[in-house]
Amino acid sequence: MQIDRDRLWARLMRLGEIGGYPEGGVDRQALSDEEHEAWRQMLLWADAAGLVPETDAAANLFLTLPGQDRSLPPLLAGSHLDSQPTGGRFDGAYGVMAALEAVSVMAEQGFRPARDVTVVSWMNEEGSRFAPGMMGSEYFAGTRRIAVIRAARDAEGIACGDEIDRLQAAFPALRQRRPFRPAAYLEPHIEQGPELDKAGVPIGIVTGIQGKVTCEVTISGARGHAGTEPMRGRRDAVIAFARAAVALEERIGYRDPEIRFTIGRVEVTPNAPSVIAGEVRFRIDLRHPSNAVLEAAAGEIAGIVAAEAAPCAAQVRVLVHAPSNEFHPALRARIADAVLRRGYAARPIASAAGHDARHLAGICPTAMIFIPCRDGISHDPAESAEEADVAAGAQVLLDVLNSLAEG
Amino acid sequence: MQIDRDRLWARLMRLGEIGGYPEGGVDRQALSDEEHEAWRQMLLWADAAGLVPETDAAANLFLTLPGQDRSLPPLLAGSHLDSQPTGGRFDGAYGVMAALEAVSVMAEQGFRPARDVTVVSWMNEEGSRFAPGMMGSEYFAGTRRIAVIRAARDAEGIACGDEIDRLQAAFPALRQRRPFRPAAYLEPHIEQGPELDKAGVPIGIVTGIQGKVTCEVTISGARGHAGTEPMRGRRDAVIAFARAAVALEERIGYRDPEIRFTIGRVEVTPNAPSVIAGEVRFRIDLRHPSNAVLEAAAGEIAGIVAAEAAPCAAQVRVLVHAPSNEFHPALRARIADAVLRRGYAARPIASAAGHDARHLAGICPTAMIFIPCRDGISHDPAESAEEADVAAGAQVLLDVLNSLAEG
Repeated sequence: MQIDRDRLWARLMRLGEIGGYPEGGVDRQALSDEEHEAWRQMLLWADAAGLVPETDAAANLFLTLPGQDRSLPPLLAGSHLDSQPTGGRFDGAYGVMAALEAVSVMAEQGFRPARDVTVVSWMNEEGSRFAPGMMGSEYFAGTRRIAVIRAARDAEGIACGDEIDRLQAAFPALRQRRPFRPAAYLEPHIEQGPELDKAGVPIGIVTGIQGKVTCEVTISGARGHAGTEPMRGRRDAVIAFARAAVALEERIGYRDPEIRFTIGRVEVTPNAPSVIAGEVRFRIDLRHPSNAVLEAAAGEIAGIVAAEAAPCAAQVRVLVHAPSNEFHPALRARIADAVLRRGYAARPIASAAGHDARHLAGICPTAMIFIPCRDGISHDPAESAEEADVAAGAQVLLDVLNSLAEG
Repeated sequence: MQIDRDRLWARLMRLGEIGGYPEGGVDRQALSDEEHEAWRQMLLWADAAGLVPETDAAANLFLTLPGQDRSLPPLLAGSHLDSQPTGGRFDGAYGVMAALEAVSVMAEQGFRPARDVTVVSWMNEEGSRFAPGMMGSEYFAGTRRIAVIRAARDAEGIACGDEIDRLQAAFPALRQRRPFRPAAYLEPHIEQGPELDKAGVPIGIVTGIQGKVTCEVTISGARGHAGTEPMRGRRDAVIAFARAAVALEERIGYRDPEIRFTIGRVEVTPNAPSVIAGEVRFRIDLRHPSNAVLEAAAGEIAGIVAAEAAPCAAQVRVLVHAPSNEFHPALRARIADAVLRRGYAARPIASAAGHDARHLAGICPTAMIFIPCRDGISHDPAESAEEADVAAGAQVLLDVLNSLAEG
């Protein structure tokens, strides 16, 4: 079976117009009017292929090609339709559209799979409107309670629960289903990094999602007048921060080539030019594919900060502690097999970014298929992917789903 | 002649109610309704002493005790009535009230000085509503043109010129005068630092205002994904900033005990936890009483930043370059003489903060008299001074004005 490359590209471009900027970027945040419109469009396409649309309590969207034995665990494939406020046309949308294309081809060819094959779009993967991200897949995987998800509020104070209700009221014909245990989950996605693009390789077989520890560090000093307070005796939170940042980067950032250490957010109080800062609050983003290395590095943060920030006081709070996971070896082997049969170049690749697949991996065999994105740029209107790579990833997904659906 | 200590204190407390918070702080910003009310109160007190009120194009307020020969250059004394948004009862107000008290005593005792003695309140010393500060004294000293002053706008977009016109329309009886060259200028002020308070000394004879260089440094790196971008090859603007800050503080901040080096404002772009920062912009506040030391230290900033920020690019822009000034030695000697006759303890002291006297020093013999403020706290509702010190400073001013007025 062959995917329809032109249709897939045209649909991706059409989807990119929903919430799209004239210059090419996309703002289609979770549960927004733009996501409503994306759902309407998806439902039209699903209807054309004869798929059965459903949703659930977390406003995930399911589009199912019914199998011969509907009591068997379904195959699940997809990603998310929400974007960052300044996102692109491929992050998330590509995975959903590749899955829709694969299932549409099956349906059009009159193929009746042994089990249901379901396209999914997870609610709020990005986490930019409601924090944290990946709410839909966490609900589905049973790792986040629906009451907690509904209580989250956006910057304007609007509750996520009210927006879930508003979305579902806009689509009253959709049947509600309960979370189920899939036979397997496959998620195509752009790499969001430069590796495949640099290597000129169209397919990445994702080995796993690298672990991540996020900390918030608060350094407390003493405010003072920049012109009068003698240098000796100051407790300058900016200088304490600078010393801690230099030491952390030197001692943690270079212990091996795979570690990633970033201080991306820094907030200084009162942040006035002539006032010695009384407080600096900053975030550390630490990642490594090996949990042992990640844990060891994360364990050193508090000690380094305390020593360097003195005489200021320092407090370290862990916000995210997500260990590395390894995707299902047999499923990865099936992807490799499909790639080989099609004659595509491919390579194993670790995902540096988080994805809904992380949570699905807890409940079923899970794998991801990456395609290159230009210069590794993502979460940016400049995000771009080649039509040939877009097609290759969807073709591999179709082949893998076919092989799984038969079994 | 003796000042009326009780009256001076009562008037200071009364003035502190205008724009005053119930807890004791003051919000009486330049040209605000609160400053209008302060002017009304000042004019009542001036009228009681028979002083002649005038203003000028920059909305400075002058209250004059006419001398025997009105063609001689007048003696000028005062400070400012505007405050920071979260200011105290003494910064600025003390100098104006001490001068009013001194001149009121002269008037009440029927003393007819040889030349005019004028109390002044300068417009917008603080610079918190309209930037920069010291507009009134700069206009008077001829270092800032009135058109530039009138064009400044506050955070709500209101033009300073419109607010000058509004103030003067509220006081239509005030005669306008042109800037004049005073015989001398004296400014009493709280120290805004801890030195006199710690030493328990009521009078500081200010040697000069320490020089100040303010720079804005922009470090330009390259944005990237915190999870994917390898450490080697990153151009992380936060790390570049941290290295530069540590090196600047170590190499400039401790070369002698009098230097003051502060990074009080830091702005990171995009300041997102999972994004390698593409830009950091920060301010350096550098001060030293010796111009030679100040110039040498300031001259090293660009080189240190460039070396430490590499491979990021760095640009240093000088925003303020105000050399140290030395107040008039003969005038300081007169203050010392008055202090000695009264038996007060006193010490020479450099002013770390800027004052209107800096600009007056360019056109006439100028000096400042400091009194202690509790714990060195200023620009804060907790700002406080002792009644005995308030009285001592005003008494010294009266004695010095008397000695000058006779000559």
